[in-house]
Amino acid sequence: MADYKVASLARLIDQFERLPGIGHKSAQRLAFHVLSMTDEQAEAFAQNILDAHKKIKKCSRCCNLSEEELCPICKNSARNESVVCVVEDPRDVMAFERTHEYDGTYHVLHGVISPMNGVGPEDIAIKELLARLSDGKVSEVIMATNPTVEGEATAMYISRLLKPMGLTVTRLAYGVPVGADLEYADEVTLTRALEGRRKL
Amino acid sequence: MADYKVASLARLIDQFERLPGIGHKSAQRLAFHVLSMTDEQAEAFAQNILDAHKKIKKCSRCCNLSEEELCPICKNSARNESVVCVVEDPRDVMAFERTHEYDGTYHVLHGVISPMNGVGPEDIAIKELLARLSDGKVSEVIMATNPTVEGEATAMYISRLLKPMGLTVTRLAYGVPVGADLEYADEVTLTRALEGRRKL
Repeated sequence: MADYKVASLARLIDQFERLPGIGHKSAQRLAFHVLSMTDEQAEAFAQNILDAHKKIKKCSRCCNLSEEELCPICKNSARNESVVCVVEDPRDVMAFERTHEYDGTYHVLHGVISPMNGVGPEDIAIKELLARLSDGKVSEVIMATNPTVEGEATAMYISRLLKPMGLTVTRLAYGVPVGADLEYADEVTLTRALEGRRKL
Repeated sequence: MADYKVASLARLIDQFERLPGIGHKSAQRLAFHVLSMTDEQAEAFAQNILDAHKKIKKCSRCCNLSEEELCPICKNSARNESVVCVVEDPRDVMAFERTHEYDGTYHVLHGVISPMNGVGPEDIAIKELLARLSDGKVSEVIMATNPTVEGEATAMYISRLLKPMGLTVTRLAYGVPVGADLEYADEVTLTRALEGRRKL
């Protein structure tokens, strides 16, 4: 049957349903929202998708997302080029930038080493990192991969590659998150927080 | 600051964030998903939005969504044109069609009378319904607005308009939903289920 379906609407619902985290009901709501848009809004929506998809590529230096050859951070001469913060994902760069406290540069790996998922060292941007460090301008590399098993393993793997190059390799501090309740902190985090305690 | 932002990506995140039920984190995830699409997929996505928005209008007869002058249901000569099921929303048509049990036609009001929200009888497709019924081909009108205060009021309002025309006006049955637990049924539903009891 299904003769009642409006083809272009069914296609749009289907399209939204294929996005991550969107179920059938949400997809339907989104599609009906598109129908309620003005012509200009619908065209702007479509154009934004095409624009972002076409224009955005990887920065040739740090592999972060960029519309140009170099990303805004790599182009900014006010940033401290001697420090590189290695992260898994462009979203992590956004998170660090929101702190307004870090003035160094970044390197985006676009993943972590994860043999379970078939991701090896050659599948993430490690060779780009090594190539970039070979000119000797960088003095410190901060490993800022996630504090997960894979993030740790990736940080260890990269630090072993970098140490022979005479670089300082550091890792983000572990501890209790600010504003959290100690009662709910897990054992490993508390142990790390104790180990990393500092004089007041 | 915010010099780290990639303009087209920020615009796309912003675009997704304006959709109903999508927060900042979800919008970010959707935008990154778009970046990970192939060229063809991104173009298809944009095209689906434009297509649905441009092609879909209201059926000139039942006001349901349609790409053509008449919707697939109104065009289908196998449907029983003497019965019209009046619903609030195109999604309700989809719900009835999924039952595969109804072979009549529909009329979509695109809303309910709701003085609290400033929606009067002239704001929903009541005059289109009256115009359509004037040719005398319809014998029964099923009021299938939602069993809410506004849905009830709208059903009552329309039935009063239709009765002088000599039409049979019916309302969906109230009762306990199939598969539900009586223990959790509310008092009003149970009372209606008792009132509407039938001989076995």
